[in-house]
Amino acid sequence: MNDTLLMLPGPVNVAPNVLAAMSKGIVNHRGAEFGKIYNETCDAMSRVFKTDNQSYIFTSSGTGGMEAAIANIANPKEKILSVVGGKFGERFADIARVHGINVEELAVEWGTAVTPEAIEAALEADENIKAVSLIHNETSTGVAAPIKEIGKVMKNYDALFVVDTVSSLGGDEVDVDKFGIDVCVTGSQKCLAAPPGLSMITLSDDAWKAVEGVNPQTYYFNMKKYRDSGNKNPAQTPYTPSVSLIYGLQEALNDIEKEGLDNRVARHHLNAEASRNASKALGFELFAEEEHASCTVTALKIPEGLTDDDIRGTMLNKYGVQLAGGQDHLKGNVFRIGHMGVTNYKELAITFTALGMTLKEKGVDVDAGAGVAALADTYIN
Amino acid sequence: MNDTLLMLPGPVNVAPNVLAAMSKGIVNHRGAEFGKIYNETCDAMSRVFKTDNQSYIFTSSGTGGMEAAIANIANPKEKILSVVGGKFGERFADIARVHGINVEELAVEWGTAVTPEAIEAALEADENIKAVSLIHNETSTGVAAPIKEIGKVMKNYDALFVVDTVSSLGGDEVDVDKFGIDVCVTGSQKCLAAPPGLSMITLSDDAWKAVEGVNPQTYYFNMKKYRDSGNKNPAQTPYTPSVSLIYGLQEALNDIEKEGLDNRVARHHLNAEASRNASKALGFELFAEEEHASCTVTALKIPEGLTDDDIRGTMLNKYGVQLAGGQDHLKGNVFRIGHMGVTNYKELAITFTALGMTLKEKGVDVDAGAGVAALADTYIN
Repeated sequence: MNDTLLMLPGPVNVAPNVLAAMSKGIVNHRGAEFGKIYNETCDAMSRVFKTDNQSYIFTSSGTGGMEAAIANIANPKEKILSVVGGKFGERFADIARVHGINVEELAVEWGTAVTPEAIEAALEADENIKAVSLIHNETSTGVAAPIKEIGKVMKNYDALFVVDTVSSLGGDEVDVDKFGIDVCVTGSQKCLAAPPGLSMITLSDDAWKAVEGVNPQTYYFNMKKYRDSGNKNPAQTPYTPSVSLIYGLQEALNDIEKEGLDNRVARHHLNAEASRNASKALGFELFAEEEHASCTVTALKIPEGLTDDDIRGTMLNKYGVQLAGGQDHLKGNVFRIGHMGVTNYKELAITFTALGMTLKEKGVDVDAGAGVAALADTYIN
Repeated sequence: MNDTLLMLPGPVNVAPNVLAAMSKGIVNHRGAEFGKIYNETCDAMSRVFKTDNQSYIFTSSGTGGMEAAIANIANPKEKILSVVGGKFGERFADIARVHGINVEELAVEWGTAVTPEAIEAALEADENIKAVSLIHNETSTGVAAPIKEIGKVMKNYDALFVVDTVSSLGGDEVDVDKFGIDVCVTGSQKCLAAPPGLSMITLSDDAWKAVEGVNPQTYYFNMKKYRDSGNKNPAQTPYTPSVSLIYGLQEALNDIEKEGLDNRVARHHLNAEASRNASKALGFELFAEEEHASCTVTALKIPEGLTDDDIRGTMLNKYGVQLAGGQDHLKGNVFRIGHMGVTNYKELAITFTALGMTLKEKGVDVDAGAGVAALADTYIN
């Protein structure tokens, strides 16, 4: 218990068996042994994505996967609608602009979720929109977009539905085929609880049709190459993969299957509800509208009279719990508690115990046990 | 000794302490603890590159680093001279074309090395060449380009000297500052003997000047972002890095410092000489001209009457030694023995013992011990 407890919206605490898996010897990534591991891991990813389509693995962070998701489906000057309600929404739009794509931004107030109606209106107004890019779980604000409902709207339009589930897949409900998601991208180091360094993607038939017509201005993230190499026997990646990390991912996905994906999603929702209740009991104000609060990260406003360092500094240096700060204009106004991956009541008990002590110590008139009491109530009921 | 022995030109056998380092717990990649690790690892890379400039780490294979090396220094329509004498030279040229750069190819017969004179002539003929891209060690052919001598020529021209040392750095002589290399890129899984999944780069002041004037069509590999994040306190990467792999790389670089870089280079040259002598003693013909033979990989012609499967299949399935095949048009004509990273006489003794038995078994009239005898002679003298 002497290690710092990571309560971040990624990277998350990684289970010892997953860490240990990375120490297996390196095998030839063009050989049959690795081909089997790669196939099995991609198949396991497709099960987590809930898709019948093939999945692919990039040796890159989630941002690399985001670049692949955009650069392969639109040519320069084609138009995409980019929903921007936080730092990662901005990133998706920026990536599209880097590739010369015409970006129409659908701005959403940070802390609130985009509505299906707003997306429908934008698609109605402009039939040239080739794709809609959306962050499912905006880690910077703690908001989850209603992708199921948005998916229903998208089915009435030709535009491709491109969804970043980097910080939601394996923790929140994502059903790629049922929600009609055409391009879904995720990362290893969030709810999947694998080590950072891999990004995974899956594409629908419609998305692959778009890929055929695109000349992507990226060599490393060219989807056609991943498809062609994946189809080889033995299956492989076009460029040297991070073999050790794929060992770790495979082990982590194995753990997910053992727990059961639905159980895991339910656990995340319970953790999130417990975290919100505990936060409110300690007098914190939620940053995100509660109706669309993320089930993997909770963003809280820093109470008046306290600084970010009062809270996060004390939590880290005195109590050994690492929380995340606000990003961009939220820096100093918001802090964030990640509760994704392997988190259960134990980590949250430590976190809210420490948070109660921190507040008390900084002169806030609060019952230091109130957070944990609310936490307990949520888990028991 | 029951594991398959990897005698590939990457990935290579990774030492147990390096594998073990990857199982350490994940830390926050925006925190001080990781900042220190990142800085130390980048500094160690600069020492291996032999440069006073800063190094940077990408979570990607070497190909990603190659894309960064090219996409950040030339705008679309600007011209680069791309030396193509093997598969990786082709890749460098292809990457430039993907980014709309005007590529002039300097074709070199596979198995031979480009001459400084040929580069000088190309630069004399066209003053619009902004950069020269070159593979130091062409893994596909087993040829090492004379980068020291080419560097002397490059100093008389403004063109940037962009060198891929993916399969040479840490094994062959590379002195970035002394050779006047402006952009040097490498990979983790070759001579550095770290696990695959990381690519490292360093840029000269002249290269950074070029970067300032370029609007790269890559988001993930945008060098300005790596520089800006590297300058933060704590130092970091712009996107989530592969923390576990960086643990492994740091450990591997530590091992290199313990051995001494010059000793390590000498060991690679000795291994290569011993491999060539052993190969010739077994009747093999070298594919690469010996004067420019790589010190990290030896390419041999498949003797008439034998197939690739006769050799590599037997070596793998019967003797547990994995060799690499030929690439592209060399497939079936050439096979390759990697001797990079932690390799010493032991691995080569196994390899050439097995190769002698393989030949004998396939009906070749050869003294099965001749390879090892020549190997021993080389090491003793």
